[in-house]
This record gives sequence, structure tokens and C-alpha cells, in this order.
Amino acid sequence: MPALDLTTDVVTLTRQLVDIESVSRDEGPIADAVEAALRALPHLVVSRYGHTIVARTELGRPERVVIAGHLDTVPVNGNLPSRLEDGVLHGLGSCDMKGGDAVILRLAATLAAPVRDVTYVLYEAEEIEAEHNGLNKLGQHHPELLAADFAILMEPSDGGVEAGCQGTLRVEVRTVGERAHSARSWRGVNAIHRAGEVLRRLEAYEPRRPVIDGLEYHEGLNAVFVSGGVAGNVIPDECVVTVNYRFAPDRSEAEALAFVRDFFEGYDVRVTDSAPGALPGLDRPAAKAFVAAVQAMGSGEVRPKFGWTDVARFTVLGVPAVNFGPGDPAYAHKQDEHVPVAQIEHCERALRAWLTDEQTQGEQR
Amino acid sequence: MPALDLTTDVVTLTRQLVDIESVSRDEGPIADAVEAALRALPHLVVSRYGHTIVARTELGRPERVVIAGHLDTVPVNGNLPSRLEDGVLHGLGSCDMKGGDAVILRLAATLAAPVRDVTYVLYEAEEIEAEHNGLNKLGQHHPELLAADFAILMEPSDGGVEAGCQGTLRVEVRTVGERAHSARSWRGVNAIHRAGEVLRRLEAYEPRRPVIDGLEYHEGLNAVFVSGGVAGNVIPDECVVTVNYRFAPDRSEAEALAFVRDFFEGYDVRVTDSAPGALPGLDRPAAKAFVAAVQAMGSGEVRPKFGWTDVARFTVLGVPAVNFGPGDPAYAHKQDEHVPVAQIEHCERALRAWLTDEQTQGEQR
Repeated sequence: MPALDLTTDVVTLTRQLVDIESVSRDEGPIADAVEAALRALPHLVVSRYGHTIVARTELGRPERVVIAGHLDTVPVNGNLPSRLEDGVLHGLGSCDMKGGDAVILRLAATLAAPVRDVTYVLYEAEEIEAEHNGLNKLGQHHPELLAADFAILMEPSDGGVEAGCQGTLRVEVRTVGERAHSARSWRGVNAIHRAGEVLRRLEAYEPRRPVIDGLEYHEGLNAVFVSGGVAGNVIPDECVVTVNYRFAPDRSEAEALAFVRDFFEGYDVRVTDSAPGALPGLDRPAAKAFVAAVQAMGSGEVRPKFGWTDVARFTVLGVPAVNFGPGDPAYAHKQDEHVPVAQIEHCERALRAWLTDEQTQGEQR
Repeated sequence: MPALDLTTDVVTLTRQLVDIESVSRDEGPIADAVEAALRALPHLVVSRYGHTIVARTELGRPERVVIAGHLDTVPVNGNLPSRLEDGVLHGLGSCDMKGGDAVILRLAATLAAPVRDVTYVLYEAEEIEAEHNGLNKLGQHHPELLAADFAILMEPSDGGVEAGCQGTLRVEVRTVGERAHSARSWRGVNAIHRAGEVLRRLEAYEPRRPVIDGLEYHEGLNAVFVSGGVAGNVIPDECVVTVNYRFAPDRSEAEALAFVRDFFEGYDVRVTDSAPGALPGLDRPAAKAFVAAVQAMGSGEVRPKFGWTDVARFTVLGVPAVNFGPGDPAYAHKQDEHVPVAQIEHCERALRAWLTDEQTQGEQR
């Protein structure tokens, strides 16, 4: 079994994690190593569900926070083992998101008495279908383990804070017609031509940009696929426009769907995928303290998160959540995935300051 | 080698032809049988090119006409051998177009001295790509063999005359955009939305309906395919609308393309397929006599042909042509392909009358 040394520095620990291959559905070895390393720490209560490890302090603090990261990666693409070069760590999972995992493990190992109780979660299968997702399964079967005042998901956010996330809804908008030979087209009804009105409405769409907790979100309503056609000489009797609606977290999934149905009034609308957004929840004391801590470390402005992430799984449980992790998300899933070591160190320092209330002198440590 | 008996009646001969399997690219046996039967006739000059047989009278008549049919069929679909039931002949190729082929062979065998010189053509590979098409190859390599004042293609036309044919042009109309994550759609440009204007123009299209030689054609401009999309969370950077223009035979291919380019002005238009129409040419003496003969037999009004057929290959050679054959074209390529025997007999009588100038007493023979 590969072993992890939690007494080493966070960059070396990131390398150890990267070098344990952990493509989705094959997280056994890395989960074993994480579990063994955490169980060796007497100040934590550790439990395991599948390949998801939960480690909690039980200090009776008035606040509890969750800090979570997934252990799996997308498939190997000639980018293992890790390679450290000029202050940048290269390798599969370095950015998405073993740098963040290393920060979690370092905090878990070194903070015996944080000022807030912490639930550390290292989970399986984030990169594949939601049914396998360790955080999803934990929320469904052991929601009490995720109960908290605030959560931080260490997805790569370039070392800044991206609060909440927008929801996503996918629908198929269908037009129907009647087949005919294209040489006698007037005997049929062209379903592709009818889709023109669907695209016309999309072109005229004006996005909402609501401000929530001081953050401006930015919605989007877009055709992501269009398909129709039977043969080169046949008037097509069906056309399907697949539309993706990204909605700000002040709208529920039901409200998002009602908007889309209304928008495409007169057309057959079928839902193929739906996931809620996540409210930033920056008004909570634990969140305010977190933002103050990371801004004292120079993390810059808190930004709204436009893309969907697992933070929304916390929203379902009533826990506000933000994304905060090392690495440029643009390099996630890329062959040349990498992370600047300074960002990993920065994230560790910021969280340590927050969990020890030492943010004022944090950068000097 | 299967043998054909040209002294039998046209229905029995149709059955013999149907029962010689002749899927495209496998016309050897049927071409051998046709060649042998025709070479036995001293009044014909017979030649063969691949599996295409040409048999000509050489009587020095002032007019020459071509009567043509293809020997191949689409693939077998549990519809062989032939079956005669209640005056209807069932089986692969019965409608498309061995009923017509039998008429040709009966005329060739029995008319030693027609009033017009006749070139009988029985050709290969009509049902597949044009490069294999026997009539196409003959026109390219031996155009002198197709020289004539008028041509009849015995494609199924329900025993009526369908004059000329419309041309067909296929183009891809392409819109381009710029990819972006759909959660940050404002950073990209949606190519599918841009295709809305393409469909809008198609919806507003008003077809030309020119009258040529007294026949009203009816054009059509239709999207037959649309496709676009990269992934469910990506703003698509390309959308392709495949458009089929069916144009009346008073327009050349070049004129048709110019119209389409103008129609889609501002868009990238690429030609994927083009074939000319065929003028009906009903003003020619041989054509007039033909129409008079078939109408005396009760074939009804001459109709314009909207679909594309090999008659257009004659147009390229300067020979006006019509479709005239037994069978409802709606049953061509269908599993339950069939032809009413009365239509086969009707077509034989009409052509015989025309080629012998006996139309007035034709129905009594």
C-alpha cells in the first residue's frame, strides 16, 4: 500500500498524492493511504464509506466547517508521474485537485485544536456520473456527517474565492413536421425550418445578472446541440435543439424550468439534466471570517462562481459553500495539467490562519 | 446462364427478368441473358459496354429515339422470386423497373421496322453512385450511341408521362462562432444561434413555379440536415445546415448555384452535390407524336417530373427526354414492391402504337 507522510511540506505531499494513480472507480489505493494516515492522528474521528474518508474534530466548538476535496482524476494521459520544475508542479491531478487535497491533509494533521470544528472530506468519483460521486452519496446516506455552518470545496480557483455556483438545466426543444420527398417538398412540413423560431428566441435572449451577497452572477441560455434530418432527399420531420440554461443561485431548479418552459412556449420541452445552483451564503459568521482571512493573505476579491461544482451538493443540505483551491481551472483535464506551488502554499496558509484566528500575522509565518 | 424468351408475353417476360437477381454491381447474369436474346435478332445492331447493352435499328429513318431502362435493383429484401396475384406482379424490381425493361425487350424483338429508328439501352448500376451508372458512362465514352431526337426512360411513372425533371443541388451552409464553457457563454459566440438567420430565410422562401412547354414545375429550397454542437457544456463554434435546392429545368446548374449563393449571402456555402434538370422538349416532332400516341391510349395528362431521374443525363447530350413506365414510383425500393400487369401491357401498347404509327387502333390489338 502506498504511504503518505503528513509531516512533510504541502508540496511534497501533493507530489505523493499525484504519484498514487487514482482514476475514477480506481480510488482504492489512494483512499487506503489517506485513511491510514488520518487514522494515525488521535485528534480526529475517522470514518470511511466506499472510498470516501471523513475525518472530524470533536471539540464542541460553536461553529463547524467542512473542507472537502475529491481524490479521483480523469484518465491518465501520459502525464504521470509528477514533475517539479521552476516552482510549478506538473502531472495528472496536480491542479484538479490533489494540491487542494494535500492542503486538507496538512491542516488535518497539524491543527489539533482549530478554533472551529472541522469535518475533512476526501471523496471518490467526482469526475464521473453523479450516482458514483462520494460527496453525493454521503449527503444522501449520512447527511449528518456534512452538517456544518459553512463549507469550502477545494476545487481549483486560482487561489481565489469563488462563491456559490450557478445551476444548470438541459432541455431538448423539439419541433415536428412531416416527411416528404424533397423534390415534392410542399407535401411535407419542414421541422428544421420550424426550429428557426427557437433559435431566433435564443438569439434575442437577454441574460439576468442578479447581485447576490454583493456578487454579480451572469446567466446564460444557449443551444449546445442541434440535430435534424433523415436523408439528403427527405423533408425532415423532427429537429431537436438541446439548450443549456445556466441560472443564478437565487433561482431554484423548478423556477429555472418554469422560465425555460415559458421561454419556449409553444414547443415540446423535455428535461435531460438538472442541478441546482449554490447560494454564496457570505453573510454567515464563518464565511465572513473565512473571507477576511483569505483577503488578508492577498487572495483578492471574492468572485461569483459561474460554472457548476459540487458546492451545490452542500446547498441541498442547507450549507453555504465556496470554491477555494490552488490551480488555474483552465488546466483541469488537460494533458499539461499543472499547479504553481506558491498557490498550494498560499491556500494552506490562508486556511490555517482562518482556523487558528491568526490571519493578521499569517503571511509572516 | 439464365435465358430470356422474347417471344412470350410482356408479363411473363417481366417475371423472367425479376427472377434473375441483379442487385447493383452484380448485373453480369442478367446482362448476359439480355445480350444473348438481343443478338439473336437479325434486325438489331448490338453492342455491350460493361453490363450495359445497346441495341439499335439501322433503318435510316429521319428520326431516332432512345428507349432506356436500368437492369439493376436495390438489395434483396425477402422479396424474390416473383409472385403473380390478382393481376399484380410482386417482387424486387417488378416496379423499379423490370416491367419497363420487359416492354423494351418486347418492342426490340417484335418491331423489325419501326417508323422511327430506335436505340434500346438496358444499363447497369442506376441505383448506386453516378460513377458506376451505365447510362452515365455511355454518355461520357460513347455519346454517339445516345444521339437521338428524343428519349424515353422507362422509370415507373404509373403509366403516365412525366416530362423532363427538376435539377438538384445540395449545399452546406456553415456558421462559425467561438467556443467557450456554457457557464461563461458571453466569452464565446454561439454558431447554432447564428444559424437561426439561415433557417429564417428558408422559412420565408417563396418557390418559383415556372411553366415550361405547358408544364408547371415547382421548385423547393429546404434544409435536409442540421448539425452542430461540441458538448453539453460548450458554446458551439460551428453549425452546418445542409440545404437541398430542387430547381426547374429552365435553370442551369450554374444558375441554380448562383441563386443559392445569393440567397445565403453572408454565409459560407459549399456545394456537396449537383445534377442538372432536364427540359421536357415536348415541342419536338418525335415527342409530340409520342404524347399523342400515349394519350390516345388513355395515359392522361402529361405531368412535369419533380424528382430527379436519369432523363437529365440525356439533357446533357442535348436530347429531350421523358419518364414513362409501369408502376407506382411510391413502391420503388419498398419491400412490397409490385406492379399492376395492366400497366405493363398499357405501356407496351402505347409505345408500339407510336413506333408503328398505329395509335388509332392501338387499343384493339
